[in-house]
Amino acid sequence: MLYLVGLGLSDETDITVKGLEVVKKASRVYLEAYTSILLVDQSVLENYYGRSIVVADREMVESNSDEILRDAQTEDVAFLVVGDPFGATTHTDLVLRARELKIPVRTVPNASIMSGIGAAGLQLYNFGQTVSMVFFLDNWRPSSFYDRIKENRTIGLHTLVLLDIKVKEQSLENMARGRRIYEPPRYMTVGQCASQMLEIEEERQEGVYGPDSLAIGAARVGGKTEKFVSGTLKELCDQDEELGAPLHSLVLLGRRTHELEHEYVREFAVNKETWDRIWKADYEGKQ
Amino acid sequence: MLYLVGLGLSDETDITVKGLEVVKKASRVYLEAYTSILLVDQSVLENYYGRSIVVADREMVESNSDEILRDAQTEDVAFLVVGDPFGATTHTDLVLRARELKIPVRTVPNASIMSGIGAAGLQLYNFGQTVSMVFFLDNWRPSSFYDRIKENRTIGLHTLVLLDIKVKEQSLENMARGRRIYEPPRYMTVGQCASQMLEIEEERQEGVYGPDSLAIGAARVGGKTEKFVSGTLKELCDQDEELGAPLHSLVLLGRRTHELEHEYVREFAVNKETWDRIWKADYEGKQ
Repeated sequence: MLYLVGLGLSDETDITVKGLEVVKKASRVYLEAYTSILLVDQSVLENYYGRSIVVADREMVESNSDEILRDAQTEDVAFLVVGDPFGATTHTDLVLRARELKIPVRTVPNASIMSGIGAAGLQLYNFGQTVSMVFFLDNWRPSSFYDRIKENRTIGLHTLVLLDIKVKEQSLENMARGRRIYEPPRYMTVGQCASQMLEIEEERQEGVYGPDSLAIGAARVGGKTEKFVSGTLKELCDQDEELGAPLHSLVLLGRRTHELEHEYVREFAVNKETWDRIWKADYEGKQ
Repeated sequence: MLYLVGLGLSDETDITVKGLEVVKKASRVYLEAYTSILLVDQSVLENYYGRSIVVADREMVESNSDEILRDAQTEDVAFLVVGDPFGATTHTDLVLRARELKIPVRTVPNASIMSGIGAAGLQLYNFGQTVSMVFFLDNWRPSSFYDRIKENRTIGLHTLVLLDIKVKEQSLENMARGRRIYEPPRYMTVGQCASQMLEIEEERQEGVYGPDSLAIGAARVGGKTEKFVSGTLKELCDQDEELGAPLHSLVLLGRRTHELEHEYVREFAVNKETWDRIWKADYEGKQ
């Protein structure tokens, strides 16, 4: 059996009791570690599970999945995924390969950022499609997120923006020379995301949002040090210190809101007066 | 401290290790039991936790929350919610009241149907807003879900439809006579949902979807007996026996799909030929 086990969002105790039993009994345990991270190190997980873990990078999962699935017709293999196994990243291809090999598959769900973000106080019912934001490069500034946000905003919905992480990246020089030396990991912040968003609005000029649009910055959702800061996109450009360590996400508000949400979210506002003023003008009662 | 603890989707072992520790230590434990249910009885939970649980019905949570929050400034109170505490139902009002009373609040997230549905094989990125479907009555057939689905379909997105449950309902007669006698619980099936959807399309005639639109019926998501059946809305009107016991949900597909999703979901098809034919004609390559 191949078990896809969600680890939740924060630390080693966010695994479910069911998931922990699977991990303890499995023949081999893999950790998918390239699309998200927990807030604790691999060694903490290994101590907690009493098991050693093989870290599966993108190359392994995409090109060498048969090694992960080896003998899973008769043995139990646990494939651990931060969040939910079918949340922000799906492992459809791994499951399809397992099906071909006649390996039964079971999923152990867990919290995903896509539902955990509800803790920011906005109804999940009023979220549209989720988008991803990548680190811009000088010559690569993909803006398809802008079109998706436009679709959501047109019908009044909120948008969850998931932020890029870079782990196990090589510099061009090291890659060219075939040196397996990796850059330190990088995690996009709410400030970087907000400023990239404003940069694209500046370029496209379609009025999808602007410096005064309301948003929520979220850090370490589901963890003990979970932190929300709400404000305008312009304000959120400068709140990274307040938000603290990774992982960050951002929610851009749609106009379809409820008074209870206003009250809930204003608690996190950089500036409550600004929040109230813009809420009243652009959001309140707009269905 | 008020702890909002997610229980996940299926049975007593879906609680996280962190959540279980909270439940074991709390002074009082409440279970919100009117918006969703686990697939096991309260007594199973009580035995597993080694604690007695107070079932909190809607009246208690909405009108008597101060009893739930009693002394939580100095004691730990656990408020258990099926799924995630901020998933399909939010408990914003309870948290706002806690804030007023200067009670600190912490959330222990868990799987929600809103992310767990990813196990059906469609990318969660391509879901639009979630809608609810209630049991129609002779003189009450609310169709606001139709407008929301229309918004999602217009931009090519999938729609998760959450289905009504009726627990602790009184008949009009018993209510009038003040008798505290409750009807047996009722859970909407995928078949009932699909046929109500088609009824409203018949009435509104806006071509938002039709009998040949592709959808997925889901039962007991996240549980050991999890079951998916995919097909046209018309086909799904008659698949309740195949899907089995509650809880059910339904996903109406949008046109924004990927070949991997096709391959994944056709495995569950009532009729693979029909599935392939309609997929090719109406979904494949339509972005």
